[in-house]
Amino acid sequence: MFMGAITKNGLDIAEKSREIVKSKIKDVLGTKYEDYTEEQMGIIERVVHATADPEYAKLMDFTDDAVKNGVEAIKNGKPIIVDISMVEAGIRYENIYNNIKSEETIELAKKEQITRAEAAMRLLKDKIDGGVVVIGNAPTALIEIVRLTKEENIKPALVVGAPVGFVKAAESKELLRNSENSAISTIGPKGGTPVAVSVANGIIALSRNEKA
Amino acid sequence: MFMGAITKNGLDIAEKSREIVKSKIKDVLGTKYEDYTEEQMGIIERVVHATADPEYAKLMDFTDDAVKNGVEAIKNGKPIIVDISMVEAGIRYENIYNNIKSEETIELAKKEQITRAEAAMRLLKDKIDGGVVVIGNAPTALIEIVRLTKEENIKPALVVGAPVGFVKAAESKELLRNSENSAISTIGPKGGTPVAVSVANGIIALSRNEKA
Repeated sequence: MFMGAITKNGLDIAEKSREIVKSKIKDVLGTKYEDYTEEQMGIIERVVHATADPEYAKLMDFTDDAVKNGVEAIKNGKPIIVDISMVEAGIRYENIYNNIKSEETIELAKKEQITRAEAAMRLLKDKIDGGVVVIGNAPTALIEIVRLTKEENIKPALVVGAPVGFVKAAESKELLRNSENSAISTIGPKGGTPVAVSVANGIIALSRNEKA
Repeated sequence: MFMGAITKNGLDIAEKSREIVKSKIKDVLGTKYEDYTEEQMGIIERVVHATADPEYAKLMDFTDDAVKNGVEAIKNGKPIIVDISMVEAGIRYENIYNNIKSEETIELAKKEQITRAEAAMRLLKDKIDGGVVVIGNAPTALIEIVRLTKEENIKPALVVGAPVGFVKAAESKELLRNSENSAISTIGPKGGTPVAVSVANGIIALSRNEKA
């Protein structure tokens, strides 16, 4: 199994794609290509493979120990907490929490006049502590994560921040990068579920001593 | 409910985003903005909202009756057939088929030396006939759809073709556009699950007489 492919044809496509992706990333980054570790570059390749958008090579940001801390958490079986069902559907991992559709979340959101994504994170804070958070859609979920880490002493092992959009997304990721968290995030409005899922599956592959 | 948002804050973000998206699309398209129907433009707005990538305004292609045929099929409760679970997770519709993980699919893929995505489509051909096909990831699934329509007289009401990647994706969508199918697709390597899901949810909204 590589990049979700299990048949020979699927594998051929995945491998050929990775070769093309590598050369496109080199074109975009130039000499900066050397600034990344092999693990970080594997994750960047997954993102560009999933979006066919080489610009992501310039938009991906890693804090120093982000990959290491994420891999260690997954090796220890810690939970992954996601913001929406599309992210959950794409990640190949058993111990995963998605609270966006629960009754409790909808009630809290209405009561506190916050978004469902925000309420879902607040309700999952015990899982988030020590876990890997993967946000592919909702800026408000990411803002709530940063609040929980600042105000409630919650400590995720890794936060993957890839909310997308022109309202609050770029700002929410800036907040994340300015926080104490280990983080892998995208700079600017771009991001989304394929980005979040690619990063998460890269971390999971590395935790199994596979190629990112 | 608008764009998946149900709380006031969620709605505010979705609405503010759509306004920004509209102006970015106008910047990209210039006078060509007027070439699209209101329904087509609503779908383009969803795609740009979901990707934060205004370039999609130039990449979206609609055959003449695509929106109309898709909306009519959904009004009649016809099935939606998808290639992968992330697409399924994002579409708000009950009658949806995803065959990528079935035993039967895996067996057929191994036996015929084809991809799982291709095998899944072949096994769902009775649902595809008259249904709405939504491909967000696998070029081979889309190529199989075109083959089914050409060689086996299967007639989907609409094919949403948004496979992504540098291997076969652009070619598979070109094949789709050169076929007899009603199609909404992206030009070039870009696409992906957010694009496919946005188009499908736009069609579903229109079928309920809501804004795309």
